[in-house]
Amino acid sequence: MATDSPVQLGMIGLGRMGANLVRRLMRDGHPCVVHDVNRDAMLELEKEGATAAASLQDFVAKLAPPRNVWLMVPAGVVQSTLDELTALLQSDDTVIDGGNSYYRDDMARARQLAPRGIHYVDCGTSGGVWGLDRGYCLMIGGEDEPVARLDPIFRTIAPGRGDAEPTPGRTRTDGTAPEGYLHCGPNGAGHFVKMVHNGVEYGMMAAIAEGLSIIRHADAGLGRREVDAETAPLREPEAYQYEIDVAEVAEVWRRGSVIGSWLVDLVADALARSPQLDQFTGRVSDSGEGRWTVQAAIDESVPAPVISASLAERYASRGLGEFGDKVLSAMRGEFGGHAEKTG
Amino acid sequence: MATDSPVQLGMIGLGRMGANLVRRLMRDGHPCVVHDVNRDAMLELEKEGATAAASLQDFVAKLAPPRNVWLMVPAGVVQSTLDELTALLQSDDTVIDGGNSYYRDDMARARQLAPRGIHYVDCGTSGGVWGLDRGYCLMIGGEDEPVARLDPIFRTIAPGRGDAEPTPGRTRTDGTAPEGYLHCGPNGAGHFVKMVHNGVEYGMMAAIAEGLSIIRHADAGLGRREVDAETAPLREPEAYQYEIDVAEVAEVWRRGSVIGSWLVDLVADALARSPQLDQFTGRVSDSGEGRWTVQAAIDESVPAPVISASLAERYASRGLGEFGDKVLSAMRGEFGGHAEKTG
Amino acid sequence: MATDSPVQLGMIGLGRMGANLVRRLMRDGHPCVVHDVNRDAMLELEKEGATAAASLQDFVAKLAPPRNVWLMVPAGVVQSTLDELTALLQSDDTVIDGGNSYYRDDMARARQLAPRGIHYVDCGTSGGVWGLDRGYCLMIGGEDEPVARLDPIFRTIAPGRGDAEPTPGRTRTDGTAPEGYLHCGPNGAGHFVKMVHNGVEYGMMAAIAEGLSIIRHADAGLGRREVDAETAPLREPEAYQYEIDVAEVAEVWRRGSVIGSWLVDLVADALARSPQLDQFTGRVSDSGEGRWTVQAAIDESVPAPVISASLAERYASRGLGEFGDKVLSAMRGEFGGHAEKTG
Amino acid sequence: MATDSPVQLGMIGLGRMGANLVRRLMRDGHPCVVHDVNRDAMLELEKEGATAAASLQDFVAKLAPPRNVWLMVPAGVVQSTLDELTALLQSDDTVIDGGNSYYRDDMARARQLAPRGIHYVDCGTSGGVWGLDRGYCLMIGGEDEPVARLDPIFRTIAPGRGDAEPTPGRTRTDGTAPEGYLHCGPNGAGHFVKMVHNGVEYGMMAAIAEGLSIIRHADAGLGRREVDAETAPLREPEAYQYEIDVAEVAEVWRRGSVIGSWLVDLVADALARSPQLDQFTGRVSDSGEGRWTVQAAIDESVPAPVISASLAERYASRGLGEFGDKVLSAMRGEFGGHAEKTG
Repeated sequence: MATDSPVQLGMIGLGRMGANLVRRLMRDGHPCVVHDVNRDAMLELEKEGATAAASLQDFVAKLAPPRNVWLMVPAGVVQSTLDELTALLQSDDTVIDGGNSYYRDDMARARQLAPRGIHYVDCGTSGGVWGLDRGYCLMIGGEDEPVARLDPIFRTIAPGRGDAEPTPGRTRTDGTAPEGYLHCGPNGAGHFVKMVHNGVEYGMMAAIAEGLSIIRHADAGLGRREVDAETAPLREPEAYQYEIDVAEVAEVWRRGSVIGSWLVDLVADALARSPQLDQFTGRVSDSGEGRWTVQAAIDESVPAPVISASLAERYASRGLGEFGDKVLSAMRGEFGGHAEKTG
Repeated sequence: MATDSPVQLGMIGLGRMGANLVRRLMRDGHPCVVHDVNRDAMLELEKEGATAAASLQDFVAKLAPPRNVWLMVPAGVVQSTLDELTALLQSDDTVIDGGNSYYRDDMARARQLAPRGIHYVDCGTSGGVWGLDRGYCLMIGGEDEPVARLDPIFRTIAPGRGDAEPTPGRTRTDGTAPEGYLHCGPNGAGHFVKMVHNGVEYGMMAAIAEGLSIIRHADAGLGRREVDAETAPLREPEAYQYEIDVAEVAEVWRRGSVIGSWLVDLVADALARSPQLDQFTGRVSDSGEGRWTVQAAIDESVPAPVISASLAERYASRGLGEFGDKVLSAMRGEFGGHAEKTG
Repeated sequence: MATDSPVQLGMIGLGRMGANLVRRLMRDGHPCVVHDVNRDAMLELEKEGATAAASLQDFVAKLAPPRNVWLMVPAGVVQSTLDELTALLQSDDTVIDGGNSYYRDDMARARQLAPRGIHYVDCGTSGGVWGLDRGYCLMIGGEDEPVARLDPIFRTIAPGRGDAEPTPGRTRTDGTAPEGYLHCGPNGAGHFVKMVHNGVEYGMMAAIAEGLSIIRHADAGLGRREVDAETAPLREPEAYQYEIDVAEVAEVWRRGSVIGSWLVDLVADALARSPQLDQFTGRVSDSGEGRWTVQAAIDESVPAPVISASLAERYASRGLGEFGDKVLSAMRGEFGGHAEKTG
Repeated sequence: MATDSPVQLGMIGLGRMGANLVRRLMRDGHPCVVHDVNRDAMLELEKEGATAAASLQDFVAKLAPPRNVWLMVPAGVVQSTLDELTALLQSDDTVIDGGNSYYRDDMARARQLAPRGIHYVDCGTSGGVWGLDRGYCLMIGGEDEPVARLDPIFRTIAPGRGDAEPTPGRTRTDGTAPEGYLHCGPNGAGHFVKMVHNGVEYGMMAAIAEGLSIIRHADAGLGRREVDAETAPLREPEAYQYEIDVAEVAEVWRRGSVIGSWLVDLVADALARSPQLDQFTGRVSDSGEGRWTVQAAIDESVPAPVISASLAERYASRGLGEFGDKVLSAMRGEFGGHAEKTG
């Protein structure tokens, strides 16, 4: 879908996400200037039609004012990149932070840029490594004017209406949400919504993981797990004699079920490739969004027991509950003379 | 997609699910005999091509042996219907329970029917009121032979391959899971998988609900909630000044995002129809599957904190934690002289 | 406190709990007949004044009817011991199960014994290895008559009024609860209350363990934990620079604080002996009561998120969430190309 | 126990806690100067031997340098009181904040006072309305010198060794923890430990409340709760026929049980006064410490699912989950045509 309003965009940061955003934009006719500390990444995109800029000075020079600069760099270097960049920009230019910054940093950065007349737009970008083809869901925060100016960019990056059936009950005909992008509010609102999106993701992932684990262990009555004198035996082993193909369950849930979702699609794929998932250790990382979501829930006095539990589950998966667990064993030893389970 | 192997099916129970299953089967060329205590429901389907049977005797008589009888009746009357029905059936007939029976009841019912040579198949059926068009995801338990015999029926009811993209990592070419139905194991295995499916559904729903609630209350710093002397004030009200359109957020999450799912589709629809959801009181029912899922996790020693929390959240939503909450207020009163928050 | 109404008791099972119960009874003048498969345990108590019985026949013969027989044997052999024993007993004899049986088994056992006129009393016994001196808290279920007959036994085993200050608001002067024993209701009620007691214990233990872990890791900002590119850095390391002596914190909490409790006493003792708890691995066992408590909460529709979470935490401590955690890592790998944290 | 080293203390804030601290200090021979905006509170303590000061100027004038000033004022006015007070103080004076301030505020306040040579000590004070007689558990943060200087004050306020049995495993003979007060570390460490103490308190309270609720509803099988077509019926009502006296259960748990604790003492008292707790609505307030504890756990990457769940439970008790619950009902309506439970 070639757009009739090409808008020039500068992209700093050509990792998987940044590079694919550029590709998706160029496909749709938007000219792109690109910069990365990794020279190969730049050359690769130059071959595909982008204009490479060897330095930030060069990068800024190659963009026509008012400039649109999209940052797609690791969270840890956003601030330093922004500081260096904004020294080169001028009034009415716009910087878009497309990473996973904390929304409070967005608020501070917008305040930092405002005296120089530079606009700041925070853009939560969901879609992972698949977004080049699927499009990315965009959650945007910032002033109305620069966001409106960037509309052709957002429209191109987003999946578009065709990606899902229309919502039957929807009567309003305005708004860009059915295209897959949304101006959520002033600065920080985009990353706030993206943060909560990731919090929801934690909870949904945990629900799926717990469910598949329950199905996998439906053979508990077959006595394959070690017996433990300290632990109650299964009262009705005859009810847990199933050996269920977990990978096929994930596959069947993809179609027609109430829990059909992209996450189920992904887990079906992972299990199709590796039914036992033996290449994983089960140490689950967490980036910042899950933490910040729980923190927001606490501040707002909103009960969020499921998202909170999913965060704690990740911490525990990495062994971070060890001292607490030792305290539990120690108490059991004290009051009951219980020896700790070993092995 | 007309099938070249029509199989006659008898359906007992013509509520929304049962009636739509019959419609979907007839569309595909399978002749159906129907029965319900509600005469209007029968007449309606008779007009659409089904054969109505006024009594169970008549119903059984109109089915050619070996018969296939699908029960789609409320959980509370499955056993009595089954008892009455099986007295009329003969060896090699098959009864399919398509409702939400507890899988342990399936095990007992299969044992009850076995001496008479009658087959029992448990079939967890997901898809809700939308299944007529979308197809239903089927999770099936029972012996191989009767399940194989029913394959054309299951194939018609299920969504079929077209409903979702192929799983990229999938290399096996056998199996029906990509069609949307799966023989999960012996009796009870179908409803076991469906039970866990619904447990996953609880957790996913809770994650979405919590997330949207956090977004809705992103205006907490605007001071609209009542002030409470017993409760800590929000330390940084300036970080919670967003008034975000929750309905539009749900809509945008439908496209390209990692949490894209049918549940998000549904909540977008509900919010499009009623942005404040004022017609709901927030008393959330639970049928048996969530409870049974947590029970299975406990029996299997599988940690399932997220699904457990989502179940507790539903109980609490119905006020069932009231006595415990009073105990908390009483303790606070005792040790701190804290007056309870009122209003 | 010598009692003026000695009652003969037979004890089967001379593990730590059983032996100490016998000692406490003999101290108070109650004659005891003892039996155990471990001959040394019997001889030890014989030296202290008990009458040893080499066989169940001998045991029963040495008790004067109507007999009082206390079972203090592992859960797994209660039923077989009971079966063998009751064949030797006669009408109006009473069997007390003092272990941690599931209350539904009590109900069945009472029904089993009733036709022969033998009474069954279930007695939840809390106090652990310290009960010889502290006394045991007793939660009793059974018919009124045999429970009343055993009152001198229960009174001796329980701690007595002196163990705690009188409850200021208590106006009723009847009842044995201030003595430390309570007839809770018909058969099963004793073990039901004990089961929930242990569920509460799980929750309280978890709260203490989590709290001490948070205090121990108050040095998180000192950068001692491994850095992980997949995990968000601590935003305000300057707020987590404390190196707090956890053992001393547990000790100070013992006096005057709102959370003062026997469990805090015990954890202070454990930490005094071993500040790092290095002898523990942190694999926390669970016997049946926590599971059954959560199950009762589910059946009763009572929200119990805290006790549920404490149970899941124990499962996770033993690595039982591993498959679920691998599923999470697998999903992260799929949508984000995230490598799993290693090491 | 009269101390041989009286130390003069000034107390600002004569609410229940502040006034009782002064009484406890005067009993032990420490001269006190008191100030409060409430003139009656001052006069009351003046009658009991304190020196009243009508203004802060007067208050400071009546204290001999180096002054010790204890603030026991609501969290909301600590900062303004401190600002006004410190303008009047001089180098080497010490301000103790005995309230429930956030430990990060302590860090900032200590930094604020340091340039003027004024010491700041944060002192978490647990003991509630009962502390006058029981003594208060003190968790202290600050520099060594001023904390050491205040030792006689802390020793008097704390319960002292007699309040609990010695910890058997304790071999170290130094340290004040067995007296009931502890210098936990530099500024903020005292309130940090107190914050976590309160977080533990949340979890313990929730465990007790859930347990008592499960016991109260052990009559679920008697069919007294409303029947609900949307909710699964209790499968085994015969197992839930107990009508247990919850108040007596709380009373019996006070003696000899593993969960014996001051919180159980308090709930026994509350239930003795009001077995149904009808005067409470069950809207449970939360002050800041529970929130901050969960936040610290998140920052430190420590799994704290139990304390987190207890916080969410309090929010839910006040109806703050309402929107989320409506979202759940809305989804159920969408996929299943489920009507919401009413009444």
